[in-house]
Amino acid sequence: MKEQEKLNFISLAKKIALLGGEEALSYFRHPNLRVDTKGSDIFDPVTEADIASEDKMRSYIQQIRPDDTILGEERGVSEGSSDFTWVLDPIDGTRAFISGIPVWTVLVSLSQNSVPILGVIYQPFTKEFFVGGLGVSDYTCKGFSTESIARKCGSLSKAFLSSTFPEIGTEFERKAFEGVASKVKLCRYGMDAYAYALLATGHLDIVVEAGLKSYDVQAPIAVIEAAGGIMTDWKGGPATNGGRVLACGDELVHKIALEMLSINI
Amino acid sequence: MKEQEKLNFISLAKKIALLGGEEALSYFRHPNLRVDTKGSDIFDPVTEADIASEDKMRSYIQQIRPDDTILGEERGVSEGSSDFTWVLDPIDGTRAFISGIPVWTVLVSLSQNSVPILGVIYQPFTKEFFVGGLGVSDYTCKGFSTESIARKCGSLSKAFLSSTFPEIGTEFERKAFEGVASKVKLCRYGMDAYAYALLATGHLDIVVEAGLKSYDVQAPIAVIEAAGGIMTDWKGGPATNGGRVLACGDELVHKIALEMLSINI
Repeated sequence: MKEQEKLNFISLAKKIALLGGEEALSYFRHPNLRVDTKGSDIFDPVTEADIASEDKMRSYIQQIRPDDTILGEERGVSEGSSDFTWVLDPIDGTRAFISGIPVWTVLVSLSQNSVPILGVIYQPFTKEFFVGGLGVSDYTCKGFSTESIARKCGSLSKAFLSSTFPEIGTEFERKAFEGVASKVKLCRYGMDAYAYALLATGHLDIVVEAGLKSYDVQAPIAVIEAAGGIMTDWKGGPATNGGRVLACGDELVHKIALEMLSINI
Repeated sequence: MKEQEKLNFISLAKKIALLGGEEALSYFRHPNLRVDTKGSDIFDPVTEADIASEDKMRSYIQQIRPDDTILGEERGVSEGSSDFTWVLDPIDGTRAFISGIPVWTVLVSLSQNSVPILGVIYQPFTKEFFVGGLGVSDYTCKGFSTESIARKCGSLSKAFLSSTFPEIGTEFERKAFEGVASKVKLCRYGMDAYAYALLATGHLDIVVEAGLKSYDVQAPIAVIEAAGGIMTDWKGGPATNGGRVLACGDELVHKIALEMLSINI
């Protein structure tokens, strides 16, 4: 791909995230926001904001690049004829969104022949863009821009870990998670993809998750790998389909955490 | 107290929080931030930013109101001769601060003859002020201002709960917490005083905590009570000294949660 084409894709991906984010933000903290649940057993919230945000992004993509495939959390697949697929999560962290906490994000990623090549994680309230792929790894916020570099913390005992546990996962998965969590310096909870963004920018060292979907992980994988981090499933294989995920800034720490997770499940 | 004096105090309290917040923000997400620990058993972080922020606030108060008492988390008490005491927590949520998560806050409160009369919760990265007391209950953010009103969710099963558990508390306290947590609609973790601010603005319904200090609760009490919420210890008594704390937007839900907490401990 030529340099100019790469830059065009990066700029377009950010524009798509911005449009979806502005739409979602217009519903954020509104007292009358309509919240439904997807799950029958657990409270898996979805709001009118998720749907409005995804529709906004889809219609813009269809206008600019009508031949590309679109896969979105809320509206599913619109098959295209080109090599490119846009994967959209209009609000990643809907629990945070409906609780007024500004750590939900909009996820936009681009795949070429099923390989993720670009990811954008955008937080609309703080106006933070985390972008990775096509030769770029950067953080921008209201005119300030810096390169994103994942941190090498050196050991598990120095690591800051983030996870959606204790809320998610089976009993076995939770035990595996707790095995790792009990060895780290600090745990943080409930951030969804914002945690991957903080890992890519060198503020967190490990993210452990389970039960993820493809649209939850595509953008984070691109952002983390561009920043020099590593993101796999709990067996060290590709994380592109979601499921159980382990992301680390430091490859050595990833190796140790991986061993603990696979022993414990 | 005269209206003008109230307004002066509100304006001063916000200015103090702003000064401390700007100072703390200058250290936020810096790769070389020095982090020490206060605890010997657990990792209880304190940073150079906590100390610099408190020093900034103390020196401004001493300049503007030299006769007032100051009580700060990091530097302790400077006895004054007036009826007024400023209680300062320069960075509430140091764990979030050192992890790059913008939910830490600066807490400033004012007591008259040991009664909290005004509280400010300030988040410097998002520039959000949550103010309560002296006839005011409001949220302001970059020119936008609105009245803060706590939500009446009606029942435990509809409530959004926030807590620092599972990280904190004794085993008994954790069991008591889990008794309440298992009955609510949604739990969020790790927000410290930002959770009280979201309760006062009607986005969360319950905050359950243990092991708090006086400087952790003084500002939140003023902010929550001004917004029509209620904040007590786990026996329904005053929460002003910290310890085990229960805050609710809805008095009815507070009564139910209180019964569950006191049965379980």
